[in-house]
Amino acid sequence: MTKTIPLARYLFTRLRQLGCHSIHGVPGDFFLRALDHVRPSGLNWIGNASELCAGYAADGYARAGQHVAARRTGKGPRLGALFTTYGVGELSAINAVAGSYAESIPVVHFVGTPSRKAWQTASAKRPIHHTLADSMIGMNAYCAMAENVTCASVYFHQYEKVERALSSYDTHLTGAVRFSKPVYVSIPSDYVEAPVPLELLNKPLPWPSDPRPDREEIVHPIVDRIHERVRAAQRPLLIVDGLCYPFDFIKEANELSMMLPTAGFTAGKGVIDESNPNWLGTLSAPIDYQPDLLILLGPMLSDTNTATWTAVPEAKSVVKIGLESVEIDDEMDGFVSGKAVLSKLVAELQRVPGVVGQAPQVALGRPQGPSGIPQRQAPKLTTHNSITQDSFWAAMTGFLASNDTVLLANGTPLIVGGDLELGAQTQVIASSIWCSIGQMLPAAQGVAAAKRDHKLPGRTILFEGDGSFQVTCQALSDIIRYKLDVTIFIVNNAGYTYERWLNGMEAEYNDVPAWKYTEAAKFFGGGESDPAYTVNSIKVAQWSELQGVLKDGKFTNGKGLKVIEVVMEPSDVPQKAKAGLKRASEALRASS
Amino acid sequence: MTKTIPLARYLFTRLRQLGCHSIHGVPGDFFLRALDHVRPSGLNWIGNASELCAGYAADGYARAGQHVAARRTGKGPRLGALFTTYGVGELSAINAVAGSYAESIPVVHFVGTPSRKAWQTASAKRPIHHTLADSMIGMNAYCAMAENVTCASVYFHQYEKVERALSSYDTHLTGAVRFSKPVYVSIPSDYVEAPVPLELLNKPLPWPSDPRPDREEIVHPIVDRIHERVRAAQRPLLIVDGLCYPFDFIKEANELSMMLPTAGFTAGKGVIDESNPNWLGTLSAPIDYQPDLLILLGPMLSDTNTATWTAVPEAKSVVKIGLESVEIDDEMDGFVSGKAVLSKLVAELQRVPGVVGQAPQVALGRPQGPSGIPQRQAPKLTTHNSITQDSFWAAMTGFLASNDTVLLANGTPLIVGGDLELGAQTQVIASSIWCSIGQMLPAAQGVAAAKRDHKLPGRTILFEGDGSFQVTCQALSDIIRYKLDVTIFIVNNAGYTYERWLNGMEAEYNDVPAWKYTEAAKFFGGGESDPAYTVNSIKVAQWSELQGVLKDGKFTNGKGLKVIEVVMEPSDVPQKAKAGLKRASEALRASS
Repeated sequence: MTKTIPLARYLFTRLRQLGCHSIHGVPGDFFLRALDHVRPSGLNWIGNASELCAGYAADGYARAGQHVAARRTGKGPRLGALFTTYGVGELSAINAVAGSYAESIPVVHFVGTPSRKAWQTASAKRPIHHTLADSMIGMNAYCAMAENVTCASVYFHQYEKVERALSSYDTHLTGAVRFSKPVYVSIPSDYVEAPVPLELLNKPLPWPSDPRPDREEIVHPIVDRIHERVRAAQRPLLIVDGLCYPFDFIKEANELSMMLPTAGFTAGKGVIDESNPNWLGTLSAPIDYQPDLLILLGPMLSDTNTATWTAVPEAKSVVKIGLESVEIDDEMDGFVSGKAVLSKLVAELQRVPGVVGQAPQVALGRPQGPSGIPQRQAPKLTTHNSITQDSFWAAMTGFLASNDTVLLANGTPLIVGGDLELGAQTQVIASSIWCSIGQMLPAAQGVAAAKRDHKLPGRTILFEGDGSFQVTCQALSDIIRYKLDVTIFIVNNAGYTYERWLNGMEAEYNDVPAWKYTEAAKFFGGGESDPAYTVNSIKVAQWSELQGVLKDGKFTNGKGLKVIEVVMEPSDVPQKAKAGLKRASEALRASS
Repeated sequence: MTKTIPLARYLFTRLRQLGCHSIHGVPGDFFLRALDHVRPSGLNWIGNASELCAGYAADGYARAGQHVAARRTGKGPRLGALFTTYGVGELSAINAVAGSYAESIPVVHFVGTPSRKAWQTASAKRPIHHTLADSMIGMNAYCAMAENVTCASVYFHQYEKVERALSSYDTHLTGAVRFSKPVYVSIPSDYVEAPVPLELLNKPLPWPSDPRPDREEIVHPIVDRIHERVRAAQRPLLIVDGLCYPFDFIKEANELSMMLPTAGFTAGKGVIDESNPNWLGTLSAPIDYQPDLLILLGPMLSDTNTATWTAVPEAKSVVKIGLESVEIDDEMDGFVSGKAVLSKLVAELQRVPGVVGQAPQVALGRPQGPSGIPQRQAPKLTTHNSITQDSFWAAMTGFLASNDTVLLANGTPLIVGGDLELGAQTQVIASSIWCSIGQMLPAAQGVAAAKRDHKLPGRTILFEGDGSFQVTCQALSDIIRYKLDVTIFIVNNAGYTYERWLNGMEAEYNDVPAWKYTEAAKFFGGGESDPAYTVNSIKVAQWSELQGVLKDGKFTNGKGLKVIEVVMEPSDVPQKAKAGLKRASEALRASS
């Protein structure tokens, strides 16, 4: 007799084979029993306080696998997993899933649905809870909604033969990893324990084979054309962007940047080892420099990531390298592996070392440098005793260390974070396009879970504003509940400062209420005397207090939970950001 | 010269004309300036901590207008309003909007979008933040998603002539009220201040005129058919359900229940003045009684609302009266005003008073009564000193008063709340189908805002579990920020008790972490010494403590914020609910 396992066991074991050792979610009656199979499959269940938190955490978990240390060792997760209930649960998480889609993060979203029988017999006269009670739209409404923000779906209720459903599941799971996008998997309550032949698990996951876009005859001519341009260029500039993380370009980007002057956009922060002398800094404003060749790796040229495109230098020749696309001077090749092209290009350039980088390096000029690219210099420390955005961020550069994962919440941290100076192998998680307020606290929870699951090095450090914190504050409870190691700086400046600058400096709608952030950990269940998990909270409003915290091992060791509330003026923004915010505000007004 | 006003001013003034005096939402850069026009339009802005909270609050605000006191005086809001930003904002709220759709609550969801120019020029190469950065799907993805959960949409970017857009807006605004469903209105950032002729505001809102489904020749024959059946019935039973609130059936339902024995489902709790001797109670299990005529008013026959349909009595003849439909013995008339039919039916029956109600009243038998319909009796008070679900809910009956609005959170309160004994004019907000955990705390905020806006009588009282509270806890901050009057009972039983009974009594995934609920108000910004707004928090674990609170004017006066944490055993549920939960658990297991 064939040995069988329950369907849920199969699904979860496949996740584990892809390095996903934790599932995030909120329980719901349609899939409770599935959770009984999480542990036996070798996974952890992380029960979040809300579905939105779970969605962001699953996204953060996947991003942790894109840390250079994880990529190098092959130890990190290759995707994140989220489990919610039909309708009410999945829709509460859909903003996070859409964010994963927009920013190319691989996440599988499991949804527990009513039974197969219910899918056939449900009607507006006898509606099942969590449905829209509407015969016109029926039970498929949420699937239809999810299709807008996922790259593929498996609806188990549509399959009579479980083997066929599982084959589709396997394909889409590896598809999520390969295409770096979320997928949607719905499982009716009566399917959770359907028997599945155990031997199916021995089949390797179906990675796409030929025709592969990394075949020599496809890659070679493209590399030749780029190589030619690089050799001919007088003033080449390499720009790394956020999609280098999910597209696994970090190794090649660093190799290339040994030979070319290199800058980045904020979302690409951390891709390049900043001790590389070719590293120029983060582009966050127009620069007085016109390269003759621009090579963009993993570009995500959104308005917010490029100072409304003003920070993208003009160039005669532009090469953009994406996941499975290479664009040379507006001519697009849509079926070629970007990684294969990059790797081959590096090899070609390395055959005659030193030649490429020199001339442009002189041309770009350092330390004079083009305006807009920040120059290396000692952080300007404040002489008086209040904490400003400028002095705070200058001090943070010294606080960060190699292997840290740094999350920049949307708002001021995202605007400023590009100027941090980083050690080697520091991952920065900064939204390139989604920019959803509240994303990064739960994302930090997910990162910390992945770091623990895979024993990845470095701390998890979040820079967050008070407005952001309030959107998803319950994620702090999730961090405490699962005893995760997270260091959080909460900038308390009484409102949405970024929005104040865009419109309404004094407007009441940009205020947020005053919470007691140093009480947060205690309120959310943080035990004061848990020897297995220390919680440290402190409020600093004076420069000397901040300096004290940054020297205090209790706050720098990265173990347990640290909450550092930093009080600043409501209208204070970094000097450098003022020009950009004024421009953005004017652009908003001009468009009306 | 024609005097003009900014577009936003027009939109908001129309809301005010419909009794909506507060807009809920979270600011976003695409619509910040619109908020400058909220106050000048005579409205309040309620800035919620999260979009999901805002969505639930807008829904609660609309429901407050369905309180019998509001309906009688015509003073309450006729719809709620929600304002979020494009993509990230609207998707975070979409679960709440879908809930409004499922439960027939009129809400207008404004979404501030990128400018009209951006709608034309945006591409995957130059994506705007908050988009999916995907040319295939483009910027319409969220509109497409919203269409699944709203009954109509106005996309301002599609209109060149503002007058035509406004005409569509007016139509759909009254449509939302008439059909009691949410509508979606998107406004590009550059349209917010477009000049609109002031005189347009003097035009009355376009309510549908002829052909009306309340015309005599349509209504009359239907009433005749129902009247005939009522006269012939030996054992008629009237059942009121949740949609009596949005469909404005409360007056007619009470008139009819003076002449017919009457029961309800939980969602219809509060529709009938329970001092009416014909009121039998809430149906929450099968009953040993077969009526020969069943008249269902505003039915929402979902599984959760009807004990998986077992609580719906079988009857030879069944009449269902909906918003614009009347169904007699499975024969459906889909274009007739339910209210007009009801009103006419009442008038017909009142012409020969007393005849109809008597025989069936004897047949139904009281006080013996059919099993499953609870009998009036003194609450069973506990003799020992711990608080059980049974003793707690029995005590609550004495705590509630006329004009209160009582919100039953999804989970145990929803299951038990049907058995509360209510005074006249008590509104109960209980989910009939959506059953989204976390809905009711923000809904209570919305109810309290509407009560204040319209000086509606009665307290706002929420019964909430700890698991529910954690999903949307930041709503407490919104309540405090806007100094709203809300009384909250938080049942602290360390988890999802309802789910424990369905599956996994000991399962870790049904635990929730221990928060310090009595610290909540303080943590979320509640001033200890604000003379304009008092906050009282207390934790009770002993029966005598609970009794003390229920007698203490500080906790009964309904002014300011009261947080009463009630500690109970994790597995305790009301005796009566056990059978139903066991049945539901078995049904879940049997279906697999």
